[in-house]
Amino acid sequence: MDYRLEQDLLGEINIDNSTYSGINTARALENFDLNSKTVNLNLVKEIALIKKAAAMTNKNLKLLAPEKADAIIKSSEEIIEGKFDHEFKISAFQGGAGTSTNMNVNEVIANRSIEMLGGTKGDYNLVHPLNHVNMSQSTNDVYPSALRIAAIRLIRKLSNSLSSLQEALQMKENEFSDIIKLGRTQLMDALPMTAGQSFGAYSKAIERDRWRIYKVEERLRQINLGGTAIGTGLNATNKYVFMITDIIQELTGLGIARSDYPMDITQNCDIYVETSGLLKSCSVNLIKISNDLRLLGSGPRGGIGEFILPNMQAGSTIMPGKINPVIPEMVAQVSLRVIANDSAITMASSMGQLELNAFTPLIAESLLESLELLDRSVMIFKEKCIIGLKVNKDRCYENLEKSLVSVTALVPHLGYDKASSISKKALANGKTIREILLEEQILPEEIIDKILSPAELIRTHIPGK
Amino acid sequence: MDYRLEQDLLGEINIDNSTYSGINTARALENFDLNSKTVNLNLVKEIALIKKAAAMTNKNLKLLAPEKADAIIKSSEEIIEGKFDHEFKISAFQGGAGTSTNMNVNEVIANRSIEMLGGTKGDYNLVHPLNHVNMSQSTNDVYPSALRIAAIRLIRKLSNSLSSLQEALQMKENEFSDIIKLGRTQLMDALPMTAGQSFGAYSKAIERDRWRIYKVEERLRQINLGGTAIGTGLNATNKYVFMITDIIQELTGLGIARSDYPMDITQNCDIYVETSGLLKSCSVNLIKISNDLRLLGSGPRGGIGEFILPNMQAGSTIMPGKINPVIPEMVAQVSLRVIANDSAITMASSMGQLELNAFTPLIAESLLESLELLDRSVMIFKEKCIIGLKVNKDRCYENLEKSLVSVTALVPHLGYDKASSISKKALANGKTIREILLEEQILPEEIIDKILSPAELIRTHIPGK
Amino acid sequence: MDYRLEQDLLGEINIDNSTYSGINTARALENFDLNSKTVNLNLVKEIALIKKAAAMTNKNLKLLAPEKADAIIKSSEEIIEGKFDHEFKISAFQGGAGTSTNMNVNEVIANRSIEMLGGTKGDYNLVHPLNHVNMSQSTNDVYPSALRIAAIRLIRKLSNSLSSLQEALQMKENEFSDIIKLGRTQLMDALPMTAGQSFGAYSKAIERDRWRIYKVEERLRQINLGGTAIGTGLNATNKYVFMITDIIQELTGLGIARSDYPMDITQNCDIYVETSGLLKSCSVNLIKISNDLRLLGSGPRGGIGEFILPNMQAGSTIMPGKINPVIPEMVAQVSLRVIANDSAITMASSMGQLELNAFTPLIAESLLESLELLDRSVMIFKEKCIIGLKVNKDRCYENLEKSLVSVTALVPHLGYDKASSISKKALANGKTIREILLEEQILPEEIIDKILSPAELIRTHIPGK
Amino acid sequence: MDYRLEQDLLGEINIDNSTYSGINTARALENFDLNSKTVNLNLVKEIALIKKAAAMTNKNLKLLAPEKADAIIKSSEEIIEGKFDHEFKISAFQGGAGTSTNMNVNEVIANRSIEMLGGTKGDYNLVHPLNHVNMSQSTNDVYPSALRIAAIRLIRKLSNSLSSLQEALQMKENEFSDIIKLGRTQLMDALPMTAGQSFGAYSKAIERDRWRIYKVEERLRQINLGGTAIGTGLNATNKYVFMITDIIQELTGLGIARSDYPMDITQNCDIYVETSGLLKSCSVNLIKISNDLRLLGSGPRGGIGEFILPNMQAGSTIMPGKINPVIPEMVAQVSLRVIANDSAITMASSMGQLELNAFTPLIAESLLESLELLDRSVMIFKEKCIIGLKVNKDRCYENLEKSLVSVTALVPHLGYDKASSISKKALANGKTIREILLEEQILPEEIIDKILSPAELIRTHIPGK
Repeated sequence: MDYRLEQDLLGEINIDNSTYSGINTARALENFDLNSKTVNLNLVKEIALIKKAAAMTNKNLKLLAPEKADAIIKSSEEIIEGKFDHEFKISAFQGGAGTSTNMNVNEVIANRSIEMLGGTKGDYNLVHPLNHVNMSQSTNDVYPSALRIAAIRLIRKLSNSLSSLQEALQMKENEFSDIIKLGRTQLMDALPMTAGQSFGAYSKAIERDRWRIYKVEERLRQINLGGTAIGTGLNATNKYVFMITDIIQELTGLGIARSDYPMDITQNCDIYVETSGLLKSCSVNLIKISNDLRLLGSGPRGGIGEFILPNMQAGSTIMPGKINPVIPEMVAQVSLRVIANDSAITMASSMGQLELNAFTPLIAESLLESLELLDRSVMIFKEKCIIGLKVNKDRCYENLEKSLVSVTALVPHLGYDKASSISKKALANGKTIREILLEEQILPEEIIDKILSPAELIRTHIPGK
Repeated sequence: MDYRLEQDLLGEINIDNSTYSGINTARALENFDLNSKTVNLNLVKEIALIKKAAAMTNKNLKLLAPEKADAIIKSSEEIIEGKFDHEFKISAFQGGAGTSTNMNVNEVIANRSIEMLGGTKGDYNLVHPLNHVNMSQSTNDVYPSALRIAAIRLIRKLSNSLSSLQEALQMKENEFSDIIKLGRTQLMDALPMTAGQSFGAYSKAIERDRWRIYKVEERLRQINLGGTAIGTGLNATNKYVFMITDIIQELTGLGIARSDYPMDITQNCDIYVETSGLLKSCSVNLIKISNDLRLLGSGPRGGIGEFILPNMQAGSTIMPGKINPVIPEMVAQVSLRVIANDSAITMASSMGQLELNAFTPLIAESLLESLELLDRSVMIFKEKCIIGLKVNKDRCYENLEKSLVSVTALVPHLGYDKASSISKKALANGKTIREILLEEQILPEEIIDKILSPAELIRTHIPGK
Repeated sequence: MDYRLEQDLLGEINIDNSTYSGINTARALENFDLNSKTVNLNLVKEIALIKKAAAMTNKNLKLLAPEKADAIIKSSEEIIEGKFDHEFKISAFQGGAGTSTNMNVNEVIANRSIEMLGGTKGDYNLVHPLNHVNMSQSTNDVYPSALRIAAIRLIRKLSNSLSSLQEALQMKENEFSDIIKLGRTQLMDALPMTAGQSFGAYSKAIERDRWRIYKVEERLRQINLGGTAIGTGLNATNKYVFMITDIIQELTGLGIARSDYPMDITQNCDIYVETSGLLKSCSVNLIKISNDLRLLGSGPRGGIGEFILPNMQAGSTIMPGKINPVIPEMVAQVSLRVIANDSAITMASSMGQLELNAFTPLIAESLLESLELLDRSVMIFKEKCIIGLKVNKDRCYENLEKSLVSVTALVPHLGYDKASSISKKALANGKTIREILLEEQILPEEIIDKILSPAELIRTHIPGK
Repeated sequence: MDYRLEQDLLGEINIDNSTYSGINTARALENFDLNSKTVNLNLVKEIALIKKAAAMTNKNLKLLAPEKADAIIKSSEEIIEGKFDHEFKISAFQGGAGTSTNMNVNEVIANRSIEMLGGTKGDYNLVHPLNHVNMSQSTNDVYPSALRIAAIRLIRKLSNSLSSLQEALQMKENEFSDIIKLGRTQLMDALPMTAGQSFGAYSKAIERDRWRIYKVEERLRQINLGGTAIGTGLNATNKYVFMITDIIQELTGLGIARSDYPMDITQNCDIYVETSGLLKSCSVNLIKISNDLRLLGSGPRGGIGEFILPNMQAGSTIMPGKINPVIPEMVAQVSLRVIANDSAITMASSMGQLELNAFTPLIAESLLESLELLDRSVMIFKEKCIIGLKVNKDRCYENLEKSLVSVTALVPHLGYDKASSISKKALANGKTIREILLEEQILPEEIIDKILSPAELIRTHIPGK
């Protein structure tokens, strides 16, 4: 194998010459050799985007020689295009507040730039990972800024997916608006409703989720580039901080803004807790909905059996013909993972100390994973479960018919206590409310017909319904 | 003792005649005999307010006789005034989705109304807990509506407390804007900053908390009164639902609004998860700030010792003169309790099924406890810790002076690697950066003076600073 | 009102002379004025027990005058008997690592002892809260020791309650061993089983819970009395540490032991995390069981309806005759609270620093609450839900009969793919497996009878069953 | 490309003929296309081991033709050896309670066996994934059994790593037993101790962790093979269940045992919650220790600076010479991930319903990830942080010397109040306790020397120390 010798303040290491990463990456790979998930590539690519923007800025401000800047810009673009994905293998749980990942990007860019300029990897006089690629920057302004940009992009994607799910739910609301079924509270027979209303209520919840997640972008837009190590901006100029923010805005097409108090962004992580908390709210809704669908689809014969979920795969290695609700089960598990990630983000954020939070790598990993998982599972939920879902009209009718829930409509006529005794009698004797009413001549038949008509029982106050 | 006999569909119970509560309350007290916290009185009082509003509405709509309605209204007001606090002793962890607490309020109002009308407690022909007090209502629309109103009131209180804390932090930012101290990242000596900036960063975080918590009120304003048991509105009229919402608005002075899809409010709990998630974000900031204050105040002699927290009480039963940072310690514990409550709210909300969440009592208890605890502890934090906090200027200077952090300012002049070796040498030999620079004649003294001047080292990009 | 003036190193305060508490308690009440839960009385009483044991030891070792010691002993006993419960009103979320509660106990004992000795409250020359009552002690050895003793007593109680629940479940296993019903996996019809087996599986889970919780006592038995402030034992003698442990053993009747490394007990809280983790495991089982009972009891007519839970209270203020599963709902909420408490205990324990964990008050509050709540709810669950639970044999039969689950028994005879197509056909055509087998002459009738006999379908490998 | 056509009860799919996986795997890959972590290979390999054991058993019992059985055995061994790792790419968050992963293993084994027997992939008449490979099994007994075996192996590994860490901590206890330093409670100067004692206390905590984790294996050993779909054992014989357990024992060398109530193992997940809870306790200790090391190592000059952690990598892209405590930071993040995983395991386990928990894939993923991450990070912690850690003796002395903590030793001589006023005076006037004692002639110098001698101040009650 072909090696090059690199050195840092701790000594020297032989680096496999085929890699663009340098000594800092090598140390990190060894120090954090956890066989775990590696750093999220969305984050890496936004760091590369910042490197590009910094090089453009430093070139403009004549802090960096044009040919160096141009090489850095091109190398950064190659990372963004995915050409160097294999170079970013440091653990997602790295110590050092993200310095290793920043170093990794700096080193890959430096060596690729050196190569572009005709030099040999490791000849950092041509392009130095820190003096040139990292110029005017610190991990502590680059890393949170990249994380925010990565989060915003995923938030927009998720927001669209949630819109799409919500529309599908609304279509189901309309599709099933004429099917009357039993409503249940605390799992006990309660009052009649339509099958469409189930989906109407789900749709409302997902609509709120979309809106919340869409709105949190506002607070994620503030970045602290130019704040450098602790937010005071040492080694970056005023011109730099204004210009790089404009360039980032242009490169991303997002409403990125300069924080008026960079020290705040450097040390406080509440925005990640807030964002993750909203993903958690969404997860709670997804668990509730997926559990409802599984419950209403239980059976097919020995359960409630009112809903028929699309068949997605054979369900058992031993029970032939068994089909399971695997999509809602997956959605629930992803949602639980998001809730667990929220717990990690909360604890890590609370453990920040003084001018920095040392645990941002865990926060970044958890937040970006939650965003990606939710986005994917929401789309699968819609496409492979909601769209094809059918309602078993006969079963809905059967369950409603045998229940005693029409008794509630008697309260304004007979009072609660009388109605209660009718219900008790019906249950004990295996009869219906109508049967008892007629047998005991409590109300005339035409009144009964009117009170207990399905149309009357499911009417709502919603204008137009 | 004096008893009255009451009955329900399960049988009869002797009720101590001194109590205004009836048989349903008695059963709940026995069923949920947990020796735990009892139901939050803020919630009870908002339920009473809804009873008052319902009686006003039912009277207006001529569904309820005026004398009955007036008695119910007056009895409700007495509950709101706190006259019957001792009657509400059912466990906060009750089963039944809040029905027991609603029954408890209904019964107290009924018996007090009967008394007002000259009857004897238990003579429900005069005023019936369900037929009259609960008219047009269900626990499932009363309880969530009351919870939302209670939450909004506490949110406004907390929002004010956070404003007040934020102002105190900003005052400290100004007070200490001239004291230069060592900034630390990952607890290691990093760069110089001002003591004021510590508080500036805290202030920014608390400002966001206040804003988030203030804004969530919008989504809490929607109530489902008139939706009755599952949101379809059976046994309530269209006129009722419009009129009661107007009355609630007037009685509370809050921008309460009628939900256009009551079934949503009845079954979905994501708004509580969202609200609690924001309280969690706030808690994370409070933990971070309180930990920082404890750390910077550590010592007084053998720690960092840069901050001097107000002395609040003797700190030890064995170590004379020891004073501990008890206020930040309390704030952190309250914050942890809020985070734990968020976990309960999240799980309970995800466990909702079909047309109702059976676990709203746990959600209500946890959410209201979090709001109250945060409000109180934020005010104590401000008054007993922030306002009187002092900075030990000498210690700040001493810690900064002996550190090597000025080396970073050399990077633009000497490059990272050279600066690194200077820092390494200074550390190894117990010297300062300036000493090494002079000894080795690396830079002329006037340049050194300029680069390493405190003013230069702490400059920020913040306009006006 | 009658006041006495007390002083500490911060100044003087007028103390209401009717209270036995002194200046340190007064400051704590003001500093932690959270309107929250107050300190758990189980803990207070074990602290008083330690005070008694310390006085006995100090008297024996001639460090404390006999009359002072005797007064302290008697005063401590009065606290244990509950005579001074109203004196302990400091918030459970107090800062100071429990010092305020220890001070509170010291002060009440001192003033009560002074009174016994004929003096006036506040005349601490007679009996001094610290020099005499707290002699040879520190909050940091008293508080964790008291917490461990309190936890052990509650663990024994809970362990008995779990045994009792387990026995009730086993009785149900036997009671329903002849009722065949449908087993479900992922809520879908799976295989036949007995109703008894449902309870057998629950019983096994609760048996493990009892055993785990019983066994953790071993690790809670170690106390650090004599370690004083940080575990080094300054101001306590070797004789003291041996003698007080013996006395505690005798007074409690528990196998309390002296830690061989008191510094460990003073700073490490993993034992509380372990204990709470086991309570969490138990909670998970209780949630699972209570959810199952609610699901199998759903209906009564429009749900699964196989189980009939005892009727405990009217379930609705609007729906007459509705009965809800309030006991399982309460059990689930208590379990969620225990899980949330575990989250608080985990975070608080992880935040310990150096020689002490400042957040033990939150840990103590959460752990003792979990133990008490679980104990109570387990007993209520048994008595008000399990013992009276009935099975609806007809409904069990009906649900099983209409299902297609017998198809699995065909796999060894026909192979998975053939069996799968039979099942598919039966489902599509609304037929039973038997009908398809006969219609298509796939197997002779006598073979079908044998394969599909209930006895064959539910046989298990468990010897003797 | 080369395809083969496979079919199931839902239809047909073209399968890339280069893969050994079949139609069920193909459907799962599409249904759970989350771009997430894929199923843990430790689990896959233990499933393959069970397939091998089942084939051996079925062959012995003459249920399976010897040549088929032998092919299955060999194919299983190849999976165990890692030859087919690339075939197992289904998401770790799959729905279906693990059926997809079991199907995946069945299909790879079937096709590899067919190949061995000279057939063509997809010709399942030769070896059928379900009729032959899955014979006498169900996912619901295979999956939990494999998970338990995988967990036990990782537990043994982690247990050894913890022993190793504990030994390293004990070596440090001895190494630093003569260095006197300041002990701190609530971060405030408390009492003197040795630097060795810090490590002694850590060692005790880790010792408990090792013991707990080692002991939980006992409860993980029970497996439910032979219970098939719901634990009743349909389609498996009594002989099978006894024989396969013996074979598993032999193949694994672990004390695996047959559950006497397989239905319990199939549906209850408390053992995973218990195990994860113990990993959480361990995480809490690791966070506490790693935070302590970071705190005591803070500086190097402007912090506490008493410990010197090994330098592992350059710490900053902007601050030359800065070295951060990256190993403890990584350990803390891994620990937080483990705590978050515990949250997922807890929620998923509580969501089990009736005869199965549909969410075991999430439980398996989380538990195995926690075990692997902890094992690795514990070893890295020991090797890259503990072993090379040094104590800065001068700094320890300096911090202790300037503190006032010796005042506590005066309490038995002067009483708490007098000692308190001496401490207060010393602090206010910038003096030491000794100086005040001498100036005010409170005690004779020889007494002072004796009381305040370091030897006296750090003595402990631990015999032999």
